[in-house]
Amino acid sequence: MNSTKDLFIGLDLGGTFIKYALGNSDAQLLIKGKKPTGADQPKEAIFAVIFQAIDELISQAEELGGRVAAIGFGSPGAVDFDHGRLMGNTPNIADWGDADIRSTIEGRYGIPLWADNDANVMTLAEARQGAAKGLKHVITLTLGTGIGGGIIIDGKLHRGVNYAGAELGHVTIKYDGEPCNCGGIGCIEQYASAPAMVRHYREKLSKSGKTALHRVTTETIFSQAKKGEAEAMATIDETCEYLGAALASILNIFNPQIIVIGGGVADAGDEFMQQIWNAMERRAMPPSLIDLKLVRAQLGNDAGMVGAIDLAAEMYYANGKVKD
Amino acid sequence: MNSTKDLFIGLDLGGTFIKYALGNSDAQLLIKGKKPTGADQPKEAIFAVIFQAIDELISQAEELGGRVAAIGFGSPGAVDFDHGRLMGNTPNIADWGDADIRSTIEGRYGIPLWADNDANVMTLAEARQGAAKGLKHVITLTLGTGIGGGIIIDGKLHRGVNYAGAELGHVTIKYDGEPCNCGGIGCIEQYASAPAMVRHYREKLSKSGKTALHRVTTETIFSQAKKGEAEAMATIDETCEYLGAALASILNIFNPQIIVIGGGVADAGDEFMQQIWNAMERRAMPPSLIDLKLVRAQLGNDAGMVGAIDLAAEMYYANGKVKD
Repeated sequence: MNSTKDLFIGLDLGGTFIKYALGNSDAQLLIKGKKPTGADQPKEAIFAVIFQAIDELISQAEELGGRVAAIGFGSPGAVDFDHGRLMGNTPNIADWGDADIRSTIEGRYGIPLWADNDANVMTLAEARQGAAKGLKHVITLTLGTGIGGGIIIDGKLHRGVNYAGAELGHVTIKYDGEPCNCGGIGCIEQYASAPAMVRHYREKLSKSGKTALHRVTTETIFSQAKKGEAEAMATIDETCEYLGAALASILNIFNPQIIVIGGGVADAGDEFMQQIWNAMERRAMPPSLIDLKLVRAQLGNDAGMVGAIDLAAEMYYANGKVKD
Repeated sequence: MNSTKDLFIGLDLGGTFIKYALGNSDAQLLIKGKKPTGADQPKEAIFAVIFQAIDELISQAEELGGRVAAIGFGSPGAVDFDHGRLMGNTPNIADWGDADIRSTIEGRYGIPLWADNDANVMTLAEARQGAAKGLKHVITLTLGTGIGGGIIIDGKLHRGVNYAGAELGHVTIKYDGEPCNCGGIGCIEQYASAPAMVRHYREKLSKSGKTALHRVTTETIFSQAKKGEAEAMATIDETCEYLGAALASILNIFNPQIIVIGGGVADAGDEFMQQIWNAMERRAMPPSLIDLKLVRAQLGNDAGMVGAIDLAAEMYYANGKVKD
């Protein structure tokens, strides 16, 4: 048995903050922190912030009598998992395009690193420590500014041959519908993301001759619906129908054990989740509903860090290292 | 080395014929035949036909100096792969519901049997010996009276936890569209199956004040389109748009290496395939189109027998038997 405990760093790069944590091989977080990303800065400046975070965590690992065995990294954008680098640009971090995460960080520290898309990393966290703990056939759908997704089949993330799979926000729900930012037509992201909900709500208010009095967010819509406002309630009903149609496709394709809904919109509560279930149940083929769970994500803001540590630990041990 | 060669039986049960073949472990067909199913007969009568076929093939295996090591079986309907039995009914074979294929046939012959849904079996055939030979991430879509599908991820068929996955005919393309036989709404099967094409074509003729002179099939539509008839050409254009929308969802989800199109409609030719590609290309996210192949199925009427033999041989050797 090794007397120096294997510890892992998890990094979660976002448009506003870099969140970072030190954890053990079960992705329990021992120490966590965050620093502003500086999303408008050049790549070198963003890596400098990342290096500070890693330096801190390496010292803290030593203080705890451990050593950093591997680093996991969740990034926005499409990530070439096998080479640990970005493919193309990310919308919210101007100069992060084509960032060579693995070679830059491994080159400096000599510690093995695995990088993946942030939606995949969060999916891994929910499947290993969160809402889908212990399950092997898992779908996650994250409802926010966009709609992200993750797919776990037989315990493994499905990335696609060019790492371009699991784009569950870009499932068609209307072949002759709204054009999407992705270049497609009628994607669920154009119907059930937060901006889509706000747009639909404003349209309904406008049709009723009303105007929204303040900045509208999805929270406004859910709180107005609780007060019984017809336009807010109709917006939520429609959103659930749209999600029901996309989820019916996903169920008929995968027949998973569980669907985990994450993102701000999912915080609306159990009633919203029940409405999504009802819409999905009306549309999906019955055998895929047997024993199916539809639940909210559990790990919240920690999901990116937890999942990055899961990724690092799993890849580290899969590469032949023995778990202590 | 074993002097008695391992041979395999493949059975392909259809609404009209039971097709049966003897093959080697590479699913090369040595002998094949077919017998009327008797789809209106009781289960026992259908099994009696199956027994005749197996008896024939066992004798022929002996004449060839081999022995039947295992049997593969493709059946319409939902098949519980782990137990080799039907789940519920099949539309075209009245009394086949809940048929216990494995225990009935293993009980009589003492030869191990694996049974699966016919779309899965055909997918396996195309992935091992056909259009997708050697590839590990394969989607098949079979366009006929219904639309069937199969999914191979990392070389393995994806069945879903209740064997209810891979229902690619029941991907939504219009959330507020046509009701589907499956209980859902706006499934691609309601838009691009052979009966849907015929319905759309008749509607267009009727709008133009024309009537079809004879029984209309998809062959009629393709041959009229070749002659330049506007209604037939418009029907084909629309069908390709519908398929493009469904395939865009499938690409954005899986990012596979290849999509194999089977069924009668796919025989229409290269121009039709090119039109499907164009519609898909306009809608799918660009990274999933890199190196992607869209091709027609190659094994035609043999696919069910070849795939059943593939299934039998793979499961037999996966269960610890050494290939000779």
